[in-house]
Amino acid sequence: RDGENRAWPFMNPGTLLDAPYRPDAARAGYADLDVALVGVPMDLGVTNRNGSRFGPRAVRNIERVGPYEHVFKALPVHELRVADIGDVPLQSRFSLEQCHADIEACFMAIADAGVRHLAVGGDHSITLPILKALGRDRPLGMIHIDAHCDTSGEFEGAKFHHGGPFRRAVLDGVLDPERTVQIGIRGAAEWLWEFSYESGMRVIHAEEVDALGIPEVIRQAREVVGDGPVYVSFDIDSIDPAFAPGTGTPEVGGLTPREVLAMMRGFAGLDVIGGDVVEVAPQYDATSNTAHVAAQMALEILCLMARAPSMGQPSGG
Amino acid sequence: RDGENRAWPFMNPGTLLDAPYRPDAARAGYADLDVALVGVPMDLGVTNRNGSRFGPRAVRNIERVGPYEHVFKALPVHELRVADIGDVPLQSRFSLEQCHADIEACFMAIADAGVRHLAVGGDHSITLPILKALGRDRPLGMIHIDAHCDTSGEFEGAKFHHGGPFRRAVLDGVLDPERTVQIGIRGAAEWLWEFSYESGMRVIHAEEVDALGIPEVIRQAREVVGDGPVYVSFDIDSIDPAFAPGTGTPEVGGLTPREVLAMMRGFAGLDVIGGDVVEVAPQYDATSNTAHVAAQMALEILCLMARAPSMGQPSGG
Amino acid sequence: RDGENRAWPFMNPGTLLDAPYRPDAARAGYADLDVALVGVPMDLGVTNRNGSRFGPRAVRNIERVGPYEHVFKALPVHELRVADIGDVPLQSRFSLEQCHADIEACFMAIADAGVRHLAVGGDHSITLPILKALGRDRPLGMIHIDAHCDTSGEFEGAKFHHGGPFRRAVLDGVLDPERTVQIGIRGAAEWLWEFSYESGMRVIHAEEVDALGIPEVIRQAREVVGDGPVYVSFDIDSIDPAFAPGTGTPEVGGLTPREVLAMMRGFAGLDVIGGDVVEVAPQYDATSNTAHVAAQMALEILCLMARAPSMGQPSGG
Amino acid sequence: RDGENRAWPFMNPGTLLDAPYRPDAARAGYADLDVALVGVPMDLGVTNRNGSRFGPRAVRNIERVGPYEHVFKALPVHELRVADIGDVPLQSRFSLEQCHADIEACFMAIADAGVRHLAVGGDHSITLPILKALGRDRPLGMIHIDAHCDTSGEFEGAKFHHGGPFRRAVLDGVLDPERTVQIGIRGAAEWLWEFSYESGMRVIHAEEVDALGIPEVIRQAREVVGDGPVYVSFDIDSIDPAFAPGTGTPEVGGLTPREVLAMMRGFAGLDVIGGDVVEVAPQYDATSNTAHVAAQMALEILCLMARAPSMGQPSGG
Amino acid sequence: RDGENRAWPFMNPGTLLDAPYRPDAARAGYADLDVALVGVPMDLGVTNRNGSRFGPRAVRNIERVGPYEHVFKALPVHELRVADIGDVPLQSRFSLEQCHADIEACFMAIADAGVRHLAVGGDHSITLPILKALGRDRPLGMIHIDAHCDTSGEFEGAKFHHGGPFRRAVLDGVLDPERTVQIGIRGAAEWLWEFSYESGMRVIHAEEVDALGIPEVIRQAREVVGDGPVYVSFDIDSIDPAFAPGTGTPEVGGLTPREVLAMMRGFAGLDVIGGDVVEVAPQYDATSNTAHVAAQMALEILCLMARAPSMGQPSGG
Amino acid sequence: RDGENRAWPFMNPGTLLDAPYRPDAARAGYADLDVALVGVPMDLGVTNRNGSRFGPRAVRNIERVGPYEHVFKALPVHELRVADIGDVPLQSRFSLEQCHADIEACFMAIADAGVRHLAVGGDHSITLPILKALGRDRPLGMIHIDAHCDTSGEFEGAKFHHGGPFRRAVLDGVLDPERTVQIGIRGAAEWLWEFSYESGMRVIHAEEVDALGIPEVIRQAREVVGDGPVYVSFDIDSIDPAFAPGTGTPEVGGLTPREVLAMMRGFAGLDVIGGDVVEVAPQYDATSNTAHVAAQMALEILCLMARAPSMGQPSGG
Ligand SMILES: [Mn+2]
Ligand SMILES: [Mn+2]
Ligand SMILES: [Mn+2]
Ligand SMILES: [Mn+2]
Ligand SMILES: [Mn+2]
Ligand SMILES: [Mn+2]
Ligand SMILES: [Mn+2]
Ligand SMILES: [Mn+2]
Ligand SMILES: [Mn+2]
Ligand SMILES: [Mn+2]
Ligand SMILES: [Mn+2]
Ligand SMILES: [Mn+2]
Repeated sequence: RDGENRAWPFMNPGTLLDAPYRPDAARAGYADLDVALVGVPMDLGVTNRNGSRFGPRAVRNIERVGPYEHVFKALPVHELRVADIGDVPLQSRFSLEQCHADIEACFMAIADAGVRHLAVGGDHSITLPILKALGRDRPLGMIHIDAHCDTSGEFEGAKFHHGGPFRRAVLDGVLDPERTVQIGIRGAAEWLWEFSYESGMRVIHAEEVDALGIPEVIRQAREVVGDGPVYVSFDIDSIDPAFAPGTGTPEVGGLTPREVLAMMRGFAGLDVIGGDVVEVAPQYDATSNTAHVAAQMALEILCLMARAPSMGQPSGG
Repeated sequence: RDGENRAWPFMNPGTLLDAPYRPDAARAGYADLDVALVGVPMDLGVTNRNGSRFGPRAVRNIERVGPYEHVFKALPVHELRVADIGDVPLQSRFSLEQCHADIEACFMAIADAGVRHLAVGGDHSITLPILKALGRDRPLGMIHIDAHCDTSGEFEGAKFHHGGPFRRAVLDGVLDPERTVQIGIRGAAEWLWEFSYESGMRVIHAEEVDALGIPEVIRQAREVVGDGPVYVSFDIDSIDPAFAPGTGTPEVGGLTPREVLAMMRGFAGLDVIGGDVVEVAPQYDATSNTAHVAAQMALEILCLMARAPSMGQPSGG
Repeated sequence: RDGENRAWPFMNPGTLLDAPYRPDAARAGYADLDVALVGVPMDLGVTNRNGSRFGPRAVRNIERVGPYEHVFKALPVHELRVADIGDVPLQSRFSLEQCHADIEACFMAIADAGVRHLAVGGDHSITLPILKALGRDRPLGMIHIDAHCDTSGEFEGAKFHHGGPFRRAVLDGVLDPERTVQIGIRGAAEWLWEFSYESGMRVIHAEEVDALGIPEVIRQAREVVGDGPVYVSFDIDSIDPAFAPGTGTPEVGGLTPREVLAMMRGFAGLDVIGGDVVEVAPQYDATSNTAHVAAQMALEILCLMARAPSMGQPSGG
Repeated sequence: RDGENRAWPFMNPGTLLDAPYRPDAARAGYADLDVALVGVPMDLGVTNRNGSRFGPRAVRNIERVGPYEHVFKALPVHELRVADIGDVPLQSRFSLEQCHADIEACFMAIADAGVRHLAVGGDHSITLPILKALGRDRPLGMIHIDAHCDTSGEFEGAKFHHGGPFRRAVLDGVLDPERTVQIGIRGAAEWLWEFSYESGMRVIHAEEVDALGIPEVIRQAREVVGDGPVYVSFDIDSIDPAFAPGTGTPEVGGLTPREVLAMMRGFAGLDVIGGDVVEVAPQYDATSNTAHVAAQMALEILCLMARAPSMGQPSGG
Repeated sequence: RDGENRAWPFMNPGTLLDAPYRPDAARAGYADLDVALVGVPMDLGVTNRNGSRFGPRAVRNIERVGPYEHVFKALPVHELRVADIGDVPLQSRFSLEQCHADIEACFMAIADAGVRHLAVGGDHSITLPILKALGRDRPLGMIHIDAHCDTSGEFEGAKFHHGGPFRRAVLDGVLDPERTVQIGIRGAAEWLWEFSYESGMRVIHAEEVDALGIPEVIRQAREVVGDGPVYVSFDIDSIDPAFAPGTGTPEVGGLTPREVLAMMRGFAGLDVIGGDVVEVAPQYDATSNTAHVAAQMALEILCLMARAPSMGQPSGG
Repeated sequence: RDGENRAWPFMNPGTLLDAPYRPDAARAGYADLDVALVGVPMDLGVTNRNGSRFGPRAVRNIERVGPYEHVFKALPVHELRVADIGDVPLQSRFSLEQCHADIEACFMAIADAGVRHLAVGGDHSITLPILKALGRDRPLGMIHIDAHCDTSGEFEGAKFHHGGPFRRAVLDGVLDPERTVQIGIRGAAEWLWEFSYESGMRVIHAEEVDALGIPEVIRQAREVVGDGPVYVSFDIDSIDPAFAPGTGTPEVGGLTPREVLAMMRGFAGLDVIGGDVVEVAPQYDATSNTAHVAAQMALEILCLMARAPSMGQPSGG
């Protein structure tokens, strides 16, 4: 019986979703993987509380998430060839620009090998270089769950901060705004996000969710992203701080994990080709609940990838 | 006025539900009690984070729960003869089997005296010896609120771990699976719980609650357990970790305390003859919220017992 | 661009809602203010856990709330002349009565200057002297969001404890019970609050909110308070302890911040002439979430004041 | 074997030093006790952080202190007739004066019964009414271990705050300043404590301890208090905040527990007739270390009482 | 430059002393290792607070300890062939006896391969099966740093609890009591440890350290253990709880890390052939300081092993 | 009486050393100040845990430090004209280089006004631009209390990280290495600090302090810095993590606050013309003890400045 043979949940160094640890995957050309789980311990893009550089390690330390997802009826870490390949080799703790270059190079290599990925940040600025690697051939659709639209412009001289990756991704042609939906938006920075509306993204605020209901949110999101390739970017601050206090820019009045779980399950069948979970700052996570929710959402995204129509097809990566 | 004469909430050693402390009750044959509140500080049955051996003390330290329950319009600690009789005298911190024998003996003695009980654990494995004491004459019905079905089989050589008490209780003939409902189920161990379905238990997953609505959950639960004697077993991990982080096997996406309060109140009139509150591990409870919810649910179960049709009848115990 | 010129969220001493700090405002006669933000660091009125004397400082330390409220489409700190004028000068850490006298004098002076206020406590007993200052000319209406009715009588020889301010406010003629609604009520002290019902207040319990729905709660509250001047008193313990653990008399089964945000926004257009946020005890707030919710609700109340029909009129104060 | 028969350290409600709980001792006239362990959950005398009203409960919850003290080679809870008699029945959570009257009455009754006591606070103001009860026949000598001299005068209209009990005790004739030594003194309030010097107390600052060495500190203390009856008052803030963070007025640069343990053991043979442990505020005690040190020091004082020359003599109380 | 090439301290899954992770070492016969770093996540032997099953993971998560030890002028992880080989494969979370058998088998295999080890617990009971593996050919000497002698007898029916491993090790002939020194002893269980004295161990209490001075403690310890093979067993509860709160049976008045560091460095040149660091329970370690001290002491023991006369000799293992 | 008139310790926004808040000081040319207290909330120079950007706010929130220092018999905030002038206006949260330019400009302006300063960081990299501002006319002497020498070279492409400010300060001619003493040094990076020895700094390791004794440490430090102008740079990680856990690169085995207090007082009479307190990261400071020690050390440095021979002389700045 499987239960008997698994290592205890608190044994050995933890890995992302308890997947095998393969620090040598890059050298081996990622050849035998379907999905690479990758940490991106970088938080130089934040505007308030830092600390999400410790996010990947915190998610690895969660003892029990998966392997089974009973609504998907999936065992994605076992159905697919999945490994935790460690963290992106970053060359500078002092340069946001250098980190972005390193991230782009790493995800480009993974994609070039025909391998998909699920990344764990780090701050949300990491999604820009990731999208640049994944969307270079055609702009991607995106389901973006966040308290913030992250479509503001240059700020204090920085192009790559965590408040603006999706503006640049659109401008760089790697993200299709008309196939982008942003869910859970709230807080005081609405005036910085005109770009979302101007570029044609669909924005669903947290306070709209009650009136719409989750089934309608799911319906609208599916409608927006359609059948094409979709990236799922999950910012933990979309979740209310009661459930996920460990983050750098919390906003009162967020989504509940049950709501987001329902959404994730409602997205089954979309062509999800990659995703990330970002902004876990464990210094502010007195109970480790935040990392726990992040790990669960990583499992959900992996299930979506396992069930994606293009998974396993030649052009899958 | 009552308010004037009560001890301050933080005065003196705390007791379960602020009931009188009667450590000598066993020696007195429990003669003058309707309900014994009992701690069971034992956590040798856990599979992940331990610590619920400190659960009874944590629940005792909650300053303010009850005595009045305004929806039941009940003062159960005063309406009935209730006392905190201390903890089960356990003989070994190293043997799960010995502890189960001690627990069974203790609850057998209470039941033999015609006294009902409300237990505070400890891990969920304690409910097996309790049910063996209470259900020896006829199998009981059960309302089981939990993230887990706890109906798996032998595990790592252990028969009495906290993941399987209800399988054994059915096999031992002390629990009636067709009069058992399990509410709040979720997480990654679904494949271990076939026994719930095969034996005829009704399983309501956490994610089903939104669609059903609480009134329908109540209706189904009442339908399942019917008019016969019912045991209420409340595992704190049924509640979402945001509300109850202090537990050993937390699962994302749980019930809210408001939902469970509504259920408890909706169960009024059932013939609840005993119950327990388990799996409070205060080491993980940075705010003491978990013990607070546990204490509140203990009050609700005591209200159900106070309003049970058979309370006070000769065969009540 | 505004974003560029604002101080970083963690820079300099924090102030209420990041408003300018004007400790000299009293000496200047408050002449140039529309709304004074005032701390009241006093917790001698509590019956259980103390610590809300640290509430104002905790709320000041929240890094990011406002300035924009995107549902109100308001920038109240900028639309109005608003300043943090520091804390009420209190003369005794040992006398509840002396503190109440000091509070009344301070708010009387502010009101006499034709200036409105938003106070941050401190325990809920502070609202009595505040109402005495504001309601001396005519009794006020009130929207009171709390787990407790706070209408009990003298207790342990004290007239001014935090469990009874609204009984006395009615008896003193400064609060109109028939224009008072109390929302979120629950817990074990119902039997102490007969006065609410006898005097004609509308009481909406937490457990009633599910059945009513938030829109109906808003409708009833608007109906009760009508067009006259309304005070908004927000006790953080109205919110469930998962979202707001840092308080002295928490009660299981509370409102969610999303529910209260919806209410606040639904109260737009009422003639809100003042308000307070009370009972934040940061010692119990492991994540600072409680102070965060408190700060957000202070912003909402300030928006209500900014949108009040009488704001800016000669008799505004 | 004793070890086999003792209750587990985390079982049942905790009591002071794990002594039997005797809430009915007052009614029984304390007749069969040598030493009453008493909680005094009152903190209305504090000037900064409150919370020591929870001190007695925190000390009761420490799992393992004693019963054996291996340097004294004593088992004081078993050598003497000792019980935790619960907390002083206090009548008002709002009046410092009333609390002091209640405390004085309670300790007067204990002393009248010829019973000695060891008290656990609560703030340090409680020692004034205690000394008034114990010293009414003749002024006592005192070993006072504290960061503060606590000999300042009236403050903000209060006579009974925690910064001045020993001035009043001298003025009331119940404390002999020339037989009083104060050890561990530091912090910014030196200018408030002239009375210590003027009245003839011996003050040993924390920073003097390094140069003197513990043996010399012991020698001086013994010299000061001599052969007469001695009270030991231990304020937990004497200890450095690293070892005892859970207190209301911490001061950098304090004593270590090892230093104070050495002192306590060095005081063996003095005629210690009573004592207290005060200022434990568990809200600030993230690890429970503070309550642990407090419990240990209570054991040490009880050992001193057990070894006092007058213990067991007719005039012992 | 080395500093440039090392992974960031918070990157990738953490390993013991940042050594390479070699989960396959057992299958490879440990052939190419000098020292195996091994986790033993087992805490079924505790008598009070459990949780040290999470100790190995906590020590792995410490970001920065070593690689250089500037007093030893050693880089032991690089000088020797060292790897983190993961945790002992344990077969039952419910049987202390089974775990001991598994531990003994694992360390026997390592020793049989001629490889030395440094273990990280887990509770102190693990040292008995370890010593049985290492000392089977001749009894070992031991430097034992602990608050407790751990030489008591059978307890509650258990032979293998964490309070008695060194009695049994002597009785089993794998530990030489006359070459054993126990340092840091204190607390209330002295009467359980007669065996230490009767068997000829040297016991140095915590309170003796001040009078002796660290150089004399070192001299005595060296004298006791002499030139033969020495095992170093470091129980984190030897350290004062201020420095190491995260443990299950804390004792007031412990050693400081600076004292123990001085001892470790003073033991240089002894023939240290193995060691362990035990009793880290991270649930009680609010700051991670405890795991940090544990990791540092592991580094010190590894330095002692690197400098041991027999290291690298044929009979080294 | 002063005690009566001071604001309560928890009232109003906190300021550094409770000094008056003067955010407009820069605009006023600092004209009427002797010493400016300045926050520098910048942590882009760290190599491990970030978070010290919140250091200034944490130190401001300490309730009670000073105003009196009883060993110095000084009231420095009152003896001198001292104000908290807020934080350095920093222009980019993303560029370490830009921050350093802003810091240098700010301190240059203060110095140009003939005003001295005491800075609160922020990470230790801030001391380089500060020294460049203060030492431009002649290299300064320095008492540097730290776990680390901070004299390493360029790292990961960065010149201005927190591990190297004092190498660059020497190379830039603003720090005199032969008049520099570094106290408390330890940890694993010794091999990076050759520059300290080569340039002629005096390095006193933490482990040397026991043998030397504090008086000898003071004597050597005074000998090194002599009569010339001295800067005091206090890195909180010099202190042992038990006393100061809230920092980014903690090292086991540090100094105690009592030792550093004794040093500070032993430096009285040196010509201390400025100083800083750095590396307080409150995210890791579960008790606020770290910020408390930092505030106390800031008071000590201010006392040294108040007693410096050149204070008040024309060339004082
Ligand atoms: Mn984002
Ligand atoms: Mn976000
Ligand atoms: Mn269960
Ligand atoms: Mn469960
Ligand atoms: Mn209230
Ligand atoms: Mn309330
Ligand atoms: Mn005191
Ligand atoms: Mn004190
Ligand atoms: Mn041990
Ligand atoms: Mn031990
Ligand atoms: Mn430094
Ligand atoms: Mn440093």
